[in-house]
Amino acid sequence: MFSERIDRLTSSLVRDILSATQRPGMISFAGGLPAPDELPVPDWSQVPASAAQYGQSEGEPELREAIAEHARAMGIDCDLSQVLVVSGSQQGIDLVAKLFIDPGTPMITEAPTYLAALQAFELFGAACHGVPLGDDGIDAQTLREVAQTSGARLAYLIPTFQNPSGTCYCAETRAAVARVADELGLIVFEDDPYRELVYEAVDRTPICSQIKKASWIYQGSFSKSFMPGIRVGYVIASPDLMPHLVRLKQAADLHTNRFGQWLAYDHLTSADLPGRLDHLRSAYSAKRDAMDAALGEHFSELAEWTTPPGGLFFWLRLRTAIDTRSLLPEMLERNIAFMPGEVFFPATAPATGYMRLNFSHASAGQMQTGLATLAGAVRDHTIGR
Amino acid sequence: MFSERIDRLTSSLVRDILSATQRPGMISFAGGLPAPDELPVPDWSQVPASAAQYGQSEGEPELREAIAEHARAMGIDCDLSQVLVVSGSQQGIDLVAKLFIDPGTPMITEAPTYLAALQAFELFGAACHGVPLGDDGIDAQTLREVAQTSGARLAYLIPTFQNPSGTCYCAETRAAVARVADELGLIVFEDDPYRELVYEAVDRTPICSQIKKASWIYQGSFSKSFMPGIRVGYVIASPDLMPHLVRLKQAADLHTNRFGQWLAYDHLTSADLPGRLDHLRSAYSAKRDAMDAALGEHFSELAEWTTPPGGLFFWLRLRTAIDTRSLLPEMLERNIAFMPGEVFFPATAPATGYMRLNFSHASAGQMQTGLATLAGAVRDHTIGR
Repeated sequence: MFSERIDRLTSSLVRDILSATQRPGMISFAGGLPAPDELPVPDWSQVPASAAQYGQSEGEPELREAIAEHARAMGIDCDLSQVLVVSGSQQGIDLVAKLFIDPGTPMITEAPTYLAALQAFELFGAACHGVPLGDDGIDAQTLREVAQTSGARLAYLIPTFQNPSGTCYCAETRAAVARVADELGLIVFEDDPYRELVYEAVDRTPICSQIKKASWIYQGSFSKSFMPGIRVGYVIASPDLMPHLVRLKQAADLHTNRFGQWLAYDHLTSADLPGRLDHLRSAYSAKRDAMDAALGEHFSELAEWTTPPGGLFFWLRLRTAIDTRSLLPEMLERNIAFMPGEVFFPATAPATGYMRLNFSHASAGQMQTGLATLAGAVRDHTIGR
Repeated sequence: MFSERIDRLTSSLVRDILSATQRPGMISFAGGLPAPDELPVPDWSQVPASAAQYGQSEGEPELREAIAEHARAMGIDCDLSQVLVVSGSQQGIDLVAKLFIDPGTPMITEAPTYLAALQAFELFGAACHGVPLGDDGIDAQTLREVAQTSGARLAYLIPTFQNPSGTCYCAETRAAVARVADELGLIVFEDDPYRELVYEAVDRTPICSQIKKASWIYQGSFSKSFMPGIRVGYVIASPDLMPHLVRLKQAADLHTNRFGQWLAYDHLTSADLPGRLDHLRSAYSAKRDAMDAALGEHFSELAEWTTPPGGLFFWLRLRTAIDTRSLLPEMLERNIAFMPGEVFFPATAPATGYMRLNFSHASAGQMQTGLATLAGAVRDHTIGR
C-alpha cells in the first residue's frame, strides 16, 4: 500500500525523547532548544498588511536582499537571486534531498552528523558514507578517497560548531575541503545553523565561499540565534541549482509563512543585532561553562570531551563504549533526557559509547542533578558489562 | 548530477503567470487569491510567548482539538490524534505523495484537477489516471473501472467547488464514491479548501465521512476562508496512516510555524466566525455575480460555463477548442492574466479549449475591461484557425 520509502522511515526514538521532554519536571539535555529566557518577544509592528496574502515561492524580496548582504559580509559572493527562503533548515534538507537523491544514490556525511539530516537523506534512499570527524574537522584526503570510492557527488557538512560533536573545522581544513570539492566537482551542502553562537575566536569562513568551480549550497537558520517557532531559514546556492530548488520549494509548500519572514527581516536588519547576539553569546557561554564544570565533577572518570567553542552541545566519548541507548528508558523514567550518540552515525560507520548533551536549556541546578544521575547510570551499566 | 525526479519538474508556465500577476496594473484572473479587502488584520494578542520556541510536529494541541471538533461537526468521526497541522495544503499533498508514490505508481485524479497537486504527484513519479468530471462530479462506475484497470490504490478528489471546474459533487455521487472506496479499498484523499466559500444550498458532506472500511485522508485549509500568508492547513486521516504522516511531516520541516497556528486557532474558535464567513460569502458571491454578468456580455457566443455554487473560479469551455496557452503571451503583454485550461489535465486525459477565470481578485471594472480584451483575443484566434 505504501511507497517503498516508508520502509526507510526510521525509528521513533528521537520523537519519543523529544516528546518526553515536554513533560513537566523533565531535565532535558536532549534537544537543541534555545533557552526560554533568551527567546525574544516578537514585534509585529513592522509587518505589512500584505503579509496576510499569498507570497512568492522564493521568499520576501526584502528578506532575500538582507540575507544576501549578510552572506556577502561572511565572504559568500552572491546576490538576491541566489537566496531561497525555506520553512526552517529541515525543509532545506528535504529540498536538497529531492534535488539529488534517488534510491541508492551515494553521498557523504560527517560521522557523526545531524540525525534529522541523516533521516531525511535516507528517506529518499541515500547511501550515506561517513567521513570521520577529528578535532579540526574531516580529513580532506579521506573525503577525496571516500568520494572517489563511493561515487558520491554530494557532501553534507556542518563545519562550524558541528551537531552533534561541537567540532569547528580549522581554516586549513576549510580550504582543503573547498579544493577537493573543486577538484572532484563534489557539491558541498554546508549547513550552518550555529555560526552566531560563537564563544571563542575561531575561523568560521564558510567553505562555500572558497569554492571556485563546483556547485554549492549554503544553509542558514534563524532558529538558534532568533526564534525557532517562526520556522524560517534560508538556502543560498550557486546559480545553476536555483531554478530547480525554487520549483521544488513551490511543490513542497508554495512559500514560507510571511509573518515569520518579516520578523526575521526585522531581526537581521535591526541596529540592535550586534548587541543582541553579544548578549546571547554571553548567556550561552556561561551555560556552557556551568555544564563543563558539572561534567568535570561527575564525568571526568567516565568520559572524555572537548569544550565546544560554539554551538549548543557537549559530545561525550565514554571510556567504556556501552550502547548509550540502553540507558535511555531508565533515564526518561527518572525525568532526564539526553541523546544517545549511536543515532548520529550513518549505517556505514556505526559507533557506540557517545552521548550528546545540550547545555542551553537546563538550569545550572538541573545540570548538577541531571548529570549526577546520568553519571550514576553510566557507572552502573559499565560495571554491569 | 540531479535525481531522476528533476526530469519530471514541469514547466514554469504557472510560475511565469503568477509572477506576472505581481506587476502593477495587471488584471489577474489567474490565481486563487483572496480579495485583498477581505483579508483580516491579524490579532496577535492571544498568542502565548511559548510560540517562539520549537513545537510539536503534529501541531499545537489546542488547534488540533479545535480542528477535530470542526471536523466532527461536518460528520467526520475523528479525534485530536488524527489531526496533523501542515504548512498549507500544498505540504499535505507533498506528504501524501511521499506516503504512497514511487516512480510509476498509478493513482487517480479528476480530469481536470488542481494543477499544483498534479505537479507534486508527478514529481514523485505518479502515473495519474484522470476520471472525467461531469456536472455532478465523477461517475462512480467510471472510477471503479479506472481503479481496476490502472491498479490505482489512491484517488485525489476535490468534491466541493472543485478547482478548476467549480463542480460540486451531488449527494448521490458522494455516497457512491464512498461505496466504491470501501469496495475496492481505494484510499480517498479529499482536498477541501473551498468548502466555506459557499453561495448556494448544496450538499457538502465530506466523502471521507461516509467511508466505512477503507483508509482515507481529508484535507482542509485556512488560506481561502482566513489568510494564506500564515501557511497553515490540516490533514485528518484514518488512524492507520497517522504515524507515517507525522514522521514524514517531521522530516519535511519539523513543524508548522506556531504563530500562524495560533492565529488559525483564534479564527476557528472565534464567536464571530459565522458572521465573518457570512460576510465573506456575500462579498464573494457578489463578485461571482458580477463576473457572471460580464461573461454573459463578452463570452456568451464564444464559450459555455456553469455558474459555480461556491469556490473562486469560473471554468469556461470554448465553443471552438483552441489551445488557450497560445493566447497567453499576448494577454500577459496586455496586462491580463488567466489560467489556460490545458495544464489542469493529467497527461492521460489531455484536453484543449478551456480557461479558468478567478473572480475573487479583480474589481468589477477590471472584469469588464479584462474580459472584453480576452474575448477579443479568443475571437481572433478562433477566426485564425
